[in-house]
Amino acid sequence: PSSIRLAVIPGDGIGVEVTAEALKVLQAALPQDVKVEGTEYDLGARRYHATGETLPDEVLAELQGYDAILLGAIGDPSVPSGVLERGLLLKLRFAFDHHVNLRPSRLFPGVPGPLREPGAVDFVVVREGTEGPYTGNGGTIRKGTVHEVATEVSLNTAYGVERVVRDAFARAQARPRKKLTLVHKTNVLVFAGSLWSRVFTEVAAEFPEVATDYLHVDAATIFLATQPERFDVIVTDNLFGDIITDLAAAVTGGIGLAASGNLDVTGTFPSMFEPVHGSAPDIAGQGKADPTAAVLSAALLLEHLGRTKASPVLSESARKIEAAVEADLAERAAHDAPRTTSEIGDALAAKAAGL
Amino acid sequence: PSSIRLAVIPGDGIGVEVTAEALKVLQAALPQDVKVEGTEYDLGARRYHATGETLPDEVLAELQGYDAILLGAIGDPSVPSGVLERGLLLKLRFAFDHHVNLRPSRLFPGVPGPLREPGAVDFVVVREGTEGPYTGNGGTIRKGTVHEVATEVSLNTAYGVERVVRDAFARAQARPRKKLTLVHKTNVLVFAGSLWSRVFTEVAAEFPEVATDYLHVDAATIFLATQPERFDVIVTDNLFGDIITDLAAAVTGGIGLAASGNLDVTGTFPSMFEPVHGSAPDIAGQGKADPTAAVLSAALLLEHLGRTKASPVLSESARKIEAAVEADLAERAAHDAPRTTSEIGDALAAKAAGL
Ligand SMILES: CC(C)[C@H](C(=O)O)[C@@H](O)C(=O)O
Ligand SMILES: CC(C)[C@H](C(=O)O)[C@@H](O)C(=O)O
Repeated sequence: PSSIRLAVIPGDGIGVEVTAEALKVLQAALPQDVKVEGTEYDLGARRYHATGETLPDEVLAELQGYDAILLGAIGDPSVPSGVLERGLLLKLRFAFDHHVNLRPSRLFPGVPGPLREPGAVDFVVVREGTEGPYTGNGGTIRKGTVHEVATEVSLNTAYGVERVVRDAFARAQARPRKKLTLVHKTNVLVFAGSLWSRVFTEVAAEFPEVATDYLHVDAATIFLATQPERFDVIVTDNLFGDIITDLAAAVTGGIGLAASGNLDVTGTFPSMFEPVHGSAPDIAGQGKADPTAAVLSAALLLEHLGRTKASPVLSESARKIEAAVEADLAERAAHDAPRTTSEIGDALAAKAAGL
Repeated sequence: PSSIRLAVIPGDGIGVEVTAEALKVLQAALPQDVKVEGTEYDLGARRYHATGETLPDEVLAELQGYDAILLGAIGDPSVPSGVLERGLLLKLRFAFDHHVNLRPSRLFPGVPGPLREPGAVDFVVVREGTEGPYTGNGGTIRKGTVHEVATEVSLNTAYGVERVVRDAFARAQARPRKKLTLVHKTNVLVFAGSLWSRVFTEVAAEFPEVATDYLHVDAATIFLATQPERFDVIVTDNLFGDIITDLAAAVTGGIGLAASGNLDVTGTFPSMFEPVHGSAPDIAGQGKADPTAAVLSAALLLEHLGRTKASPVLSESARKIEAAVEADLAERAAHDAPRTTSEIGDALAAKAAGL
């Protein structure tokens, strides 16, 4: 393509800073003749305080017209918990049917990580993104009294589970190790667990080359914290995926490096790319945030568009960004002082442009 | 007391082996004149296969008469997932109103742990035990078809949340650091989250000396995996508690050392003590299991009975077991070969008896 049209939602806190760097590196990695047309949308805490809006219907409709969405981070302590999460971030994921929440974890050379004996960690979590305990289904009676009862309902459908499980099998099939682990809590959540197990077993029959495995989510945290190298692809539900991907980030150098994509793999709706980290209001505006997670999310964006638009040029640029990050991280130990957000962005852009 | 009456449920796999050692150490730590009267109950996979029973009503009624229950581990791959968990283990926890699931985590001197830079880790998780997504509330329609829908309902009551939150505050108050962290996912699970937050804030007013803190469960995994020393007491819901206590065990030397108590703090029903680990059928019957988690669970049992029976002798014996474990772990690096389950049990018993 001669251009890619992006809706850019910098959001709150460090989201603004890291998104600027991600766009810088994105443009640098693309050939001169592919232009990034980024349109910025002011959504998040600022807009909520100014207008009371989280995601107006007209904006949602407009966003639908883009090739993809690049998002920084959403959330601020000044906004009641849940308002922006449910009204903006999750609304986007649900409205645009982002059923595959893709979160790769890799321990890059040069990154120390917290483990004493780190192995070669390189896995990807395929987290379901449109079901489970995230649907907002539930309620409260007798609120604020000693008789209050609150429920949260996890909704799981064969349709929703099958499409994400199939996607995960296809990804496992395409990787050298060809291994897929289902993570759930089938021994306690027996209704949802039985659905996930059945669908997993059925889809497995279509992928005879993929080795399969099952772990309860509690046991999965043990392996993630001690032998993360054992994983190749993990498929799991929305809430378990939320939890284990933060843990996965922690054991591979921290949340400053963890990228994610919220994909509608059918291409009907724009997919959305965002770092796993939040808006970190405590360090916002100080140039302290590491933009690497946002930059790697931009790489996932190009990889996704490269595939859906059948454009090798975009895929190639995605690989350039990854290579730039890899090179930059390998050199990090050599820097005397911590670099600012834009210094890291500049370094990554220069590297990506030179590849 | 001149005797303590225990219902002993060795259960499945390594549960049998580690329970024998726990009883051995328990008796050794007590003064000669306090007798342990243990009555063994055959519950678990064997009984299920033989009779189809998981926990008959008569057995449940009988168990109610004991001072406490000592449990090994439940579960076997030959039994469909969920049958023994729901029909036996969770049935006991729910029937006996075990609302405080107590899980201490400590990095004992001499235990390497997986972290490159381990701090002084010593915290306790107070996990709610009778509510949340563990109630078995949920269902399935169109099972086995492409139109299957499965739900899991998390039930949360002010009554249930308040009693466990108050217990956690009291425990924090009694510890030197006096710090309590609420772990939940209030930004997504807004109904249950709002109840937990409100109750937490209200009860906090009764404990002005306790410093409070809140972490989303995903963020909590990051701190557990990288800076576990920052925690003192954590209070959380049933499912989050399940997940983070396995992680906590992993960063403090593994599941072979993690003890737990399922407490009815009112003393109406017998409390139940069990290692956090499972039945580990792959190593069962080989003398390979580390009985330390079961032994430390027996210490929790004595500590609990010491408190509810106002018996300093029992509390003192609990401390002897802990000291024996501490001494044994400090010496572990010196052993040339791995010891068997009963060798470790013998060493702990000898140490506890000598203190
Ligand atoms: C902010 C929150 C709603 C979100 C989630 O829970 O999915 C975040 O934690 C994430 O992982 O993207
Ligand atoms: C076996 C299972 C039902 C149990 C739980 O989920 O509570 C176990 O994982 C635990 O932590 O005690």
